[in-house]
Amino acid sequence: MQRAAALVRRGCGPRTPSSWGRSQSSAAAEASAVLKVRPERSRRERILTLESMNPQVKAVEYAVRGPIVLKAGEIELELQRGIKKPFTEVIRANIGDAQAMGQQPITFLRQVMALCTYPNLLDSPSFPEDAKKRARRILQACGGNSLGEAPTCQAPRREMNECSQAAPASSGGSCMRMGSYSASQGVNCIREDVAAYITRRDGGVPADPDNIYLTTGASDGISTILKILVSGGGKSRTGVMIPIPQYPLYSAVISELDAIQVNYYLDEENCWALNVNELRRAVQEAKDHCDPKVLCIINPGNPTGQVQSRKCIEDVIHFAWEEKLFLLADEVYQDNVYSPDCRFHSFKKVLYEMGPEYSSNVELASFHSTSKGYMGECGYRGGYMEVINLHPEIKGQLVKLLSVRLCPPVSGQAAMDIVVNPPVAGEESFEQFSREKESVLGNLAKKAKLTEDLFNQVPGIHCNPLQGAMYAFPRIFIPAKAVEAAQAHQMAPDMFYCMKLLEETGICVVPGSGFGQREGTYHFRMTILPPVEKLKTVLQKVKDFHINFLEKYA
Amino acid sequence: MQRAAALVRRGCGPRTPSSWGRSQSSAAAEASAVLKVRPERSRRERILTLESMNPQVKAVEYAVRGPIVLKAGEIELELQRGIKKPFTEVIRANIGDAQAMGQQPITFLRQVMALCTYPNLLDSPSFPEDAKKRARRILQACGGNSLGEAPTCQAPRREMNECSQAAPASSGGSCMRMGSYSASQGVNCIREDVAAYITRRDGGVPADPDNIYLTTGASDGISTILKILVSGGGKSRTGVMIPIPQYPLYSAVISELDAIQVNYYLDEENCWALNVNELRRAVQEAKDHCDPKVLCIINPGNPTGQVQSRKCIEDVIHFAWEEKLFLLADEVYQDNVYSPDCRFHSFKKVLYEMGPEYSSNVELASFHSTSKGYMGECGYRGGYMEVINLHPEIKGQLVKLLSVRLCPPVSGQAAMDIVVNPPVAGEESFEQFSREKESVLGNLAKKAKLTEDLFNQVPGIHCNPLQGAMYAFPRIFIPAKAVEAAQAHQMAPDMFYCMKLLEETGICVVPGSGFGQREGTYHFRMTILPPVEKLKTVLQKVKDFHINFLEKYA
Repeated sequence: MQRAAALVRRGCGPRTPSSWGRSQSSAAAEASAVLKVRPERSRRERILTLESMNPQVKAVEYAVRGPIVLKAGEIELELQRGIKKPFTEVIRANIGDAQAMGQQPITFLRQVMALCTYPNLLDSPSFPEDAKKRARRILQACGGNSLGEAPTCQAPRREMNECSQAAPASSGGSCMRMGSYSASQGVNCIREDVAAYITRRDGGVPADPDNIYLTTGASDGISTILKILVSGGGKSRTGVMIPIPQYPLYSAVISELDAIQVNYYLDEENCWALNVNELRRAVQEAKDHCDPKVLCIINPGNPTGQVQSRKCIEDVIHFAWEEKLFLLADEVYQDNVYSPDCRFHSFKKVLYEMGPEYSSNVELASFHSTSKGYMGECGYRGGYMEVINLHPEIKGQLVKLLSVRLCPPVSGQAAMDIVVNPPVAGEESFEQFSREKESVLGNLAKKAKLTEDLFNQVPGIHCNPLQGAMYAFPRIFIPAKAVEAAQAHQMAPDMFYCMKLLEETGICVVPGSGFGQREGTYHFRMTILPPVEKLKTVLQKVKDFHINFLEKYA
Repeated sequence: MQRAAALVRRGCGPRTPSSWGRSQSSAAAEASAVLKVRPERSRRERILTLESMNPQVKAVEYAVRGPIVLKAGEIELELQRGIKKPFTEVIRANIGDAQAMGQQPITFLRQVMALCTYPNLLDSPSFPEDAKKRARRILQACGGNSLGEAPTCQAPRREMNECSQAAPASSGGSCMRMGSYSASQGVNCIREDVAAYITRRDGGVPADPDNIYLTTGASDGISTILKILVSGGGKSRTGVMIPIPQYPLYSAVISELDAIQVNYYLDEENCWALNVNELRRAVQEAKDHCDPKVLCIINPGNPTGQVQSRKCIEDVIHFAWEEKLFLLADEVYQDNVYSPDCRFHSFKKVLYEMGPEYSSNVELASFHSTSKGYMGECGYRGGYMEVINLHPEIKGQLVKLLSVRLCPPVSGQAAMDIVVNPPVAGEESFEQFSREKESVLGNLAKKAKLTEDLFNQVPGIHCNPLQGAMYAFPRIFIPAKAVEAAQAHQMAPDMFYCMKLLEETGICVVPGSGFGQREGTYHFRMTILPPVEKLKTVLQKVKDFHINFLEKYA
């Protein structure tokens, strides 16, 4: 191993005699001196090992980037090295990463981001005026003011007035704002835009910027609020109710926090609907061994893609009210609803419409993200959380906890601002923006239907309607012989199935066991994000593979 | 409160009868029905309260954004409302937020970031070729490939060749890379650039990209590695040794993780040097009540600004080797060294120069950030962590844990790439880049000396040399009468002092008690970031305030 020349200079640190009696010789000499005292050169036992590490972290699982995806990476490298396979590329249908699958970014969003990043561009004629207007406003609002006392925007959000007050002189010119920390809770003007967006979305149900917390993607918000909620030991340990199948962030964070996971099963026979009787069963059983305090809902569902009816949401809210549960509503797919019979209802809106007994009592945190919807900006890690009926003292605790990490990425906050504040009719960019948005959502709707139809043509595969989100979670029949083969490989049967699928077709999907499923049932999650023609090929390959698999293990 | 019209549409959720016997009437009617059943409209006890919340989170303190800064925000709002004060603006000298204090961003960094954000600009003549070259390379490297198998760059880093392999077709065109998730560990090419930077910095001591983890600022890396390290209960609970004074991220994370904080005191009489005998005392005493497993070092020091000598670092490494401690080296101020007698030595380099017994055994994680140095890009939340001698199984655990949060912000990763990969001699942007860099660092050095000199002219203030970092941490004499007055206000004496300073001068600094200090001594932390002329005014105001304070409480 290359060794650097030892540099010994007198520093200005302590002048204490060496604690192990060496002279101020060169580093190399020091090293050999040490070796004289202790000849053994053998590697010592590590301090940090699987045995000594944090057991809760060790218990964490995250299938979406788990073993199957590691395997996909290996296969990709083999392909790059020219190793022959029955396919020429790996198709990563394991994660909802739209732009990685070829989706184009929304032009307007990137224009505003570029202007915020390099404000010299504000003078460039090649950027539209409405994009510049957004950028100027964000730049004037951001940074310089560490606790969110940044200038607030008096003007109603729909008119895109710039902040009516200039940033304090002490916080420098607007050209540097993207480089400053923001308030820990997020930039004021952006939180105001988020509140205005929620109010429009919910048909006038008011939203308070003070209840909005900008986050590093939705995952950050979800784990932060869970971190505050978890307490107690033994039988009074906090129980967190999550749907099965779930998005594995929930089980991972529950494990990290050493909380108790309380499963409630979605009804696959009823297009993955949530049944309150099942919630009741789950909470009753949980009370024997923990203190159920939190109820997590994912709507539209991940991985299941169901969209909850208004009636269902009312029942859930009443249940939470009755059982004194803190509600977490994961609504990151709120723009991804495809089924004509469905529409998105926010928990916040339904909560208010159920009247004051609910709207002034039920504690709710809901989450959104820049990563999904039609913009699919996963890389910026932008998101927000809205809290309802959070105790004022807890709000202080939340800001304190967030402040330890200083602030969410300011670029992600800016991206969130564009998501909630897109061009409106009459603005220069409106026409192109609308075209791009409709194209993305239209394609997703088409692909959702296509996927459902093709899967249901395959014997031994049943796929519920993809009402929303970005995934299919079909149920697959796995023959007894295949189950035995899987056991011989110490694999879950659906992991065995997905590994074979990957090795034979290059298609990477995630086994249902990574999300949870009823005992004895098998599924996989596949994104519907590949371009239509590629998706058709993918689905055809899965079909052929499955028929083949059934024959092989008949 | 505004009520929205109730929207009741048949969704496609469960058709189960209402679990609380209501008809499918309008939401409003449902609400009032509920209210009939339960007339009481009073607010119920909250589920999440100070009493019920996570006690570890409740115990967290973070002074850098604590009460004094909340007060500063209030005062700013009062000034905005035109309320008269003995000053016209609040000067936030509480946090190392360079650009908020007027520092200009490095042009080259922002140019590359803009190009990555909006690749249409790659055709613009107004951007230099070397910036475009960097951007193309980052864009080709990022995203599309969820587990870090993104194309690796074969070319030596100093020649800025573009990645020699194209990204897989499945991951779309390069124009969308900033919008995709990256590998959980960070983009491959950027990790390679970081490794190349470390190798240059350390005079040839090799760095392995596989040991580099890109993070969401350094704070994220530090808390992640601590999260993995903490285990055990009672007397075998993990002890984490931290300097006093410390940067409060450490105490906050230790509290969150319910680990045991083990204090070792820096030697104020010896310009805040680290003395290994003090480490020995601390670890021996700690062994009675916990399992000391981690030793945290901040070099250059925050808040103390000392730069450790090579000799001191050797002693610390030997101590860690002897006591079997996992080393955390917080080196985010490695570019911020001002004293001509000092230079930065990385723990990694000294570790290697001490010979194989150390370089193959001592476990080390070191941290860097885009937020400090001369670029001061706090908003992008970019950073990296290099791990040495980490057990291979633990590396897997680390990637698994990181993957739960998907990836660090890709924009922050790109910013990190420019920080470790700036223009070199011969490149178009080199001259301007060097000018900007020298200007920032030259000014900081000037301000460090200025601050030390002026503070030491004030009776009752002693300030050690500001060898590095961005802060002064002067010791202040607080008269007995002032201590009594503070106690009457139930405040720490230095909090009382800083509150008075804020109220009378508008200058916001952080009390020493927020960082820790020897019993009976008092300090505050002030950044040296304001522009020179403003800094002079600030220091003069502090001087006048202090003299006044001494007289008042004599």
